[in-house]
Order: sequence, then C-alpha cells, then structure tokens
Amino acid sequence: MPKITIAQNILAANDTIAQEIQQLLATRGICTINLMSSPGAGKTTLLERTIERLREQLAIGVIEGDIETGNDAERIEAAGAETVQINTRGACHLEAHMVRDALEAINLAGMRLLFIENIGNLVCPAAWNLGEDLRIVVVSTTEGDDKPAKYPQMFAVSQVMIVNKLDLLPYVDYDLEKVKRQALAINPHLRIFELSCRTGAGLEAWCEWLAAYAHGVMLGQPQGSPESRFS
Amino acid sequence: MPKITIAQNILAANDTIAQEIQQLLATRGICTINLMSSPGAGKTTLLERTIERLREQLAIGVIEGDIETGNDAERIEAAGAETVQINTRGACHLEAHMVRDALEAINLAGMRLLFIENIGNLVCPAAWNLGEDLRIVVVSTTEGDDKPAKYPQMFAVSQVMIVNKLDLLPYVDYDLEKVKRQALAINPHLRIFELSCRTGAGLEAWCEWLAAYAHGVMLGQPQGSPESRFS
Repeated sequence: MPKITIAQNILAANDTIAQEIQQLLATRGICTINLMSSPGAGKTTLLERTIERLREQLAIGVIEGDIETGNDAERIEAAGAETVQINTRGACHLEAHMVRDALEAINLAGMRLLFIENIGNLVCPAAWNLGEDLRIVVVSTTEGDDKPAKYPQMFAVSQVMIVNKLDLLPYVDYDLEKVKRQALAINPHLRIFELSCRTGAGLEAWCEWLAAYAHGVMLGQPQGSPESRFS
Repeated sequence: MPKITIAQNILAANDTIAQEIQQLLATRGICTINLMSSPGAGKTTLLERTIERLREQLAIGVIEGDIETGNDAERIEAAGAETVQINTRGACHLEAHMVRDALEAINLAGMRLLFIENIGNLVCPAAWNLGEDLRIVVVSTTEGDDKPAKYPQMFAVSQVMIVNKLDLLPYVDYDLEKVKRQALAINPHLRIFELSCRTGAGLEAWCEWLAAYAHGVMLGQPQGSPESRFS
C-alpha cells in the first residue's frame, strides 16, 4: 500500500523556563513529577490513591492541568493535597511558563512532592519540559496493547510507565507482556509498575518506591537519568 | 483554590485545501468521514467491523493516520478496504494537505465511502478541517464519564458520537446517561450510537444509518448540519 511521511520538528523553546523551574524546586528539595497519559487512563484517580497513602509522611502539592473544568482539582484537594488549577482553554499540553505561573500561586513551604498532571494526550506533552525530576506515562489495560509502538516519543522521554486498570485484564484483549516488551524496546531504562487504582493492587509497591525516590531528591541525591532531561 | 487561564488561538489555515478536498469528493459522490478519538477508544476495530458489514454494498476506502507504524492499515486492508497509510512522525493530528497527498495515492474510482482515521488524540484533531462530510468522535466506557466536559471542542465540532466498549460497562464506574447529557449540552444536534465492537451489539443500527447517510451524500442530498463545516 502507498505510504506518505510528513516530517515535523517540534520546537522545545521553553527549556530555559523549565531549567529555572528545575533549579527553584531543587533548591527547595521538592521532587517534581510530570504525569502524562491518554484521556481517561486514570491519572487523577492514581493521584487520589497516592496522596491518600503518602500525605501523612510527605507534604504534597498538585498542579492540575485541564483544558476546561476544575473537577479534577476539586477531587485532588479533597484527597488532601494543595492544588492549583490551570485551564488551558484549548491548548493540548502544558508548557513551562504555565507551570511557572502556577508555582507563584501555590504555597511551596514544606512541600516535598509536587505532581503536575498534564493534559490527557499521549502525543504533545512529551515534547515539553516542565522542569520535572521525573516523567511518568500512565497506560491502561483498556487502551489496546499497541500504544508504546504507536506513540513512541512518550515512552522514550518517560522514566516510569504505570500500567493501570489491572482489574479489567480478564475482560479485554490486552497482552501485558507485549506492552512491556514494546515499551522497553523503546526505552530500556523504563521502570514499570502494574496496578489497579480500583482494587488497590500494586499501589503499595508504587507508593513505597515513590516515597524513597522523593526522599532521594530532597537529599540532593542523583536520581534516574538526569542526562535525558535537556537533551 | 487559585486558577490560571491561558488563552490560545488555534489557526485553521488549512481550510482552503479542505474546501478543495470537499469539492473533489462531492463531485465524485464520495461520503467522507473524519474519525477521531483518544488513543485506544477503538477506532480501528470499529472500522474493521463496519467494513466487514458494508463492503458488499459500498466500495470503501480508508486513509489511515498514525504517528508511527502501519499496523492499523494492515488490519484495515485485511478487512477489505482500499487503504493508504499516513505516518506523521510526531505530529499530533492530520492536516488537509496530508489528506490531499493521500488522495493522490488511492484509487477513488467507484468509491462511495471514505474514512479518514485521525491520530488518537481528543484535542488537536478537532481544530483541523479535512474536507469531510461528517466528523465522528468515538469514546469508550473505560475512559471515564467526564470526557465531553473536559474536552468540549471535540464534541462541539462532531456530528456523531459513538460510545464503544458497551460490553465493559458492568466492570467500570461509567455513567452513560451523564456522558450523553454532557455531550448533548455541548452539542444538542449530536447523533449518538452505543455499541460494542467486541460483542457486535449496536453495530447493525450504526451500519444501517451510515449506509443511508452515504447514499444521501452520493445523491447530493444535504446532510446533517453543513453550516458547521467552515465556520
């Protein structure tokens, strides 16, 4: 069959602001996570369950990115994290200047862990540094098992992949091993967690790892693969 | 909680090409459908099931948009439609010039129904006219029931909403009536189909309607709400 390829360069002109953000947050010992996924993979529910488990040991903040509505921010506040809502009014990803503005509107004192919940989009957010320590891509067992191959950039720039909705595995055609193989072929350093926010399976291992990671950032210890940050 | 709003104008500078495409396809009596959804909502499987049911009565073509891979185009060809693959290599949506190039690579003779499967993305494709007669958004019962409210533009520009994965409804927290209410509040003219590509439920009603719609386009009858096309 005929094939047509269109090349497109995505400019990441916001790296300067992202580096300022990174320095500000590193000085304060705040571990910052850019959380990305398709719409409906379960980012907000994952945040709720994570905050409920970690809020006693870590002060947590959330920058909540949505095109419209403040529903998610309300859910996150109810779970016990300081929250600021960004509404992009049509824009398909967060950019560093939006995060910089949000940081001026949130109380950073004592904060140890800052989540940035990006717009639900498996494409565009991958191209924009936000000054984070860690990029996490959430996939779910109901999305089909070809997502790493079809959206490779997201898996190339992430350090962690979380496979959510494990409880639905019996009801869908989803080859979990194939997804992990595809993702690791793109990014051999990817750390993978499998869990269900609905049943709680896998949440403890995820939260334990995350708390240890955040503790390392607070102490200024090198984490993961920083060389991949502003390449 | 603090709120920050970023305004962004998305330019639809490709409308001229889209109008040329529309005229070309109207002259040939080809009904053209722009199929959009989140990654993994089931666009390709819906196409497979639809083509299998309609290929005896209608010659069908598919322009298959993907960032990477030709997997979907191979599935579609196997189902019995003439197919051309567009790989955007990172771009998050199809644009009219890509469709124009694809039309030069596909045999339009005798074709009655042309699907354009857009990139899996509930945001960016909504802003780009491709010369289509009909825009369809596919949502699935595993994505959460807040998608119309959170991604309103996609539902505002579509004429049809298909709710897929009805078979998974017993296993998820998904309020189908709420989704329909939200979508109709954004776009009261939206025609809604509920189906399961896995069990086949609802496919017959959908295919019957689609065949009748395509027949109307072939006869040059006004369809749906053309005033919403190039506004």
